[in-house]
Amino acid sequence: MEIIPVLIEKEIEPSDDISDLVLSSCDLHDGDILVIAQKIISKQEGRIVKLSTVEPSLLSQGIGSQYQKDPRLVELILSETKRIIRMKNGILIVETKNGFICANAGIDESNVQEGYATLLPINSDVSAESIRYNILKQTNKNVAVIISDTFGRPFRMGQTNCAIGISGLNPIIDYAGLHDSFQKILRVTAIAVADELSSAAELVMGKSLKIPITIIRNYSFKIEDHVIDELIRPEHEDLFR
Amino acid sequence: MEIIPVLIEKEIEPSDDISDLVLSSCDLHDGDILVIAQKIISKQEGRIVKLSTVEPSLLSQGIGSQYQKDPRLVELILSETKRIIRMKNGILIVETKNGFICANAGIDESNVQEGYATLLPINSDVSAESIRYNILKQTNKNVAVIISDTFGRPFRMGQTNCAIGISGLNPIIDYAGLHDSFQKILRVTAIAVADELSSAAELVMGKSLKIPITIIRNYSFKIEDHVIDELIRPEHEDLFR
Repeated sequence: MEIIPVLIEKEIEPSDDISDLVLSSCDLHDGDILVIAQKIISKQEGRIVKLSTVEPSLLSQGIGSQYQKDPRLVELILSETKRIIRMKNGILIVETKNGFICANAGIDESNVQEGYATLLPINSDVSAESIRYNILKQTNKNVAVIISDTFGRPFRMGQTNCAIGISGLNPIIDYAGLHDSFQKILRVTAIAVADELSSAAELVMGKSLKIPITIIRNYSFKIEDHVIDELIRPEHEDLFR
Repeated sequence: MEIIPVLIEKEIEPSDDISDLVLSSCDLHDGDILVIAQKIISKQEGRIVKLSTVEPSLLSQGIGSQYQKDPRLVELILSETKRIIRMKNGILIVETKNGFICANAGIDESNVQEGYATLLPINSDVSAESIRYNILKQTNKNVAVIISDTFGRPFRMGQTNCAIGISGLNPIIDYAGLHDSFQKILRVTAIAVADELSSAAELVMGKSLKIPITIIRNYSFKIEDHVIDELIRPEHEDLFR
């Protein structure tokens, strides 16, 4: 299996077409998986906000003052949030309107002009699907697409890349019912491969955003239709919400 | 970057030497990272228990009866456990004596003979270090070693591979203080690369344990001494314990 970084020098704007950019920047094979950093999708889709245009509510002003956070940023976070899961020492772990549990609703100010912040795409499955179908239409090559973002974790230090949108692959490989090497039935092993593929891609991406796209080649999988919701644990099954 | 599976047909026993097995099964390069599945380390180190020899306490019998779990398995889990973090519907999330938060203290019955269970290695850093130094001594090649295991996560469905022992690499790359592509200082981005490398390796491992070892080649890193504890979030910083 190979993880191939795709260098993109250009700053992404809404007038860009991500699939054209991919096709002009690398040589795709049938069965490749494209992992694309959320940041360039958000920029292409105009999910970028000038902080000076944001009017913070009294709640956002309060949280901002309590934790020395920019109240306009807090306002943006709350506007993307279904509910606050944890709030302590300036850390805001929320459930986004799309159901992701993450810090600051995935909003951040890195790799964007001073005074601006990027929001997560409205629907990353749709973003992934549109790129996938454009590539299929133009090249007749069937690839899968993952939109990835960097999330923190409970219990463990450091962040890892996770999938926030998918098209063309099953995000979870369930081994239940298959046999182990002793011919015993495997019971509870389901692997979140879309997250593992995102993590693998991050290793060659770095943080300067000159490599916002990665090709994963020679990973064995079947092209199938699935949705990112399959990776989100339903609340009633979640022991930590 | 390449992820190269290493096929090992043989069932691992305490008389085996994992570093010899690696050297006879693949061609290592200087600067490779070896990711090794916990299961074969546990087998080599004799961390395997015959369930019929386990005497369950009344507590283990009680938990077993409540949740239709084998009370001898519960006894083993509790014997490796510092404390129970969550217990519901037969799911036991515990803090192991080594500080990992995981289901069933990392004990499981897959890929081992019927009637047996494997425990996590006593100290996976030591296991990793010993393999690393044996390889260095025999070949003069400097590689890093990660021992990995499959953990579930709060919030997200499916399990991913994580590092439980390391030797020769920094498990976390901290970008704080560096500049993004707009020359702004990055603030809170620290990436748990040892977990991402473990996840990348899992993608070629599968679950039958014929591929318990993976080589990661052409990943850019510096050989350094670190410990797995750097990946464990201290309790006072953990919002979910």
